[in-house]
Amino acid sequence: MNILISAGGTRERIDSVRGITNIATGRLGSLIAACFDKVPETKRIFYICGTNAPRPESAKAEITVIEDTADLERAVRELLQNHRVDAIIHSMAVSDYRVRTVTTPARIAEAARTSSLADAFENAPPLGQDGKISSDENRLVIVMEPTPKIISLFHSLAPHALLVGFKLLDNVSREDLINVALKLLEKNHCAFVLANDARDIHNDSHIAYLVDRGRRVQRFEDKCGIALGITENIIEKLKPGNAK
Amino acid sequence: MNILISAGGTRERIDSVRGITNIATGRLGSLIAACFDKVPETKRIFYICGTNAPRPESAKAEITVIEDTADLERAVRELLQNHRVDAIIHSMAVSDYRVRTVTTPARIAEAARTSSLADAFENAPPLGQDGKISSDENRLVIVMEPTPKIISLFHSLAPHALLVGFKLLDNVSREDLINVALKLLEKNHCAFVLANDARDIHNDSHIAYLVDRGRRVQRFEDKCGIALGITENIIEKLKPGNAK
Repeated sequence: MNILISAGGTRERIDSVRGITNIATGRLGSLIAACFDKVPETKRIFYICGTNAPRPESAKAEITVIEDTADLERAVRELLQNHRVDAIIHSMAVSDYRVRTVTTPARIAEAARTSSLADAFENAPPLGQDGKISSDENRLVIVMEPTPKIISLFHSLAPHALLVGFKLLDNVSREDLINVALKLLEKNHCAFVLANDARDIHNDSHIAYLVDRGRRVQRFEDKCGIALGITENIIEKLKPGNAK
Repeated sequence: MNILISAGGTRERIDSVRGITNIATGRLGSLIAACFDKVPETKRIFYICGTNAPRPESAKAEITVIEDTADLERAVRELLQNHRVDAIIHSMAVSDYRVRTVTTPARIAEAARTSSLADAFENAPPLGQDGKISSDENRLVIVMEPTPKIISLFHSLAPHALLVGFKLLDNVSREDLINVALKLLEKNHCAFVLANDARDIHNDSHIAYLVDRGRRVQRFEDKCGIALGITENIIEKLKPGNAK
């Protein structure tokens, strides 16, 4: 049994020293790796993580460190084109947006004199190309564009693999959270989705719901519980005779 | 002798899960704390660091963890209003900008229909207030404004303290780097400025120049060398009879 785990978060560069990150620490991913490490059937754990994420200590783990979404896409393609994996636990918080341009209101206004305002956002001359952006601007404008959806890539490159997606919302009702998770499950061909709310994540406690295609909802109270729960559900579903 | 060390980097929130960070790890700051810990004259080390920075293990260290520039400003004011410090080593990478609004080109265009474009950047309705911004926008626009200069605060609140400023540039000549450091030294009333170039910072090596008011330039090759160099220079300058 080969497992692919993504963990931590991406970092989208603004310039050579600044970047856009998220609150993901990668601790949950490393706990999931630790759980799979203890399962005798586990042969290899392909572990893709962000630069600041903790690394699993498992001898079964093969670690790839990535910085941004483009790195992640390359790493996933490379891995899934060369290896068969039985399950993918995509716990990494992937940026939904990446930096397209860093510019100023004045540069956008200038560009808008010879084009539409919509085009000016696309074409305004960027600041500080190939270096660190000056600290002397009165306003900076960062124009962001969507990143490719990595979770779709998993299904297209490894359609046979059990996929666990993750959904983080902020300050919604439990019902809304579960409904969003169920939609994501369908849309991304997941076997499970782990749904959680940022307000329920603290140092010691981490409330999360594991939703499956039978609309079953399992609730967990902390990161160790989540990691063990995901591992056990995957193992159970991978048993010969159990339908996906 | 009381020392104030700032270490690591700030994180300016974009929404409840995303933020703007920089490449600072805080390792250098923790090494500087370790050097001062070994000096018998050191009584207290006030240590202000970013959320992901390593914490010094010194029993002399009193640690304050901050997230963004506003937190940092509060922490510095609180500390310097209540304690006398003899030297301040400001190694923290403080964001030059913070998020003013997160919006879209369409919202700015809409606002520009009833105001100037410059005002539209200031007044366009923000996305996702009090929560996580949707991942469904075709373009995001993050408008950033300057943060207060914390280094000026040190001089105004503790004018008697020896101040070590830090300057990180990217891909400039050694001459330009030193000149920028000398300007910073004057402008911010520093006793020393540690100047470095992002391209010279790697895991094991970290080339940096310590510049003082006598225009002396000391070169260091790695983080331990920098930490020890700063400590020794401060101790020397604080000896009774040595002028600041």
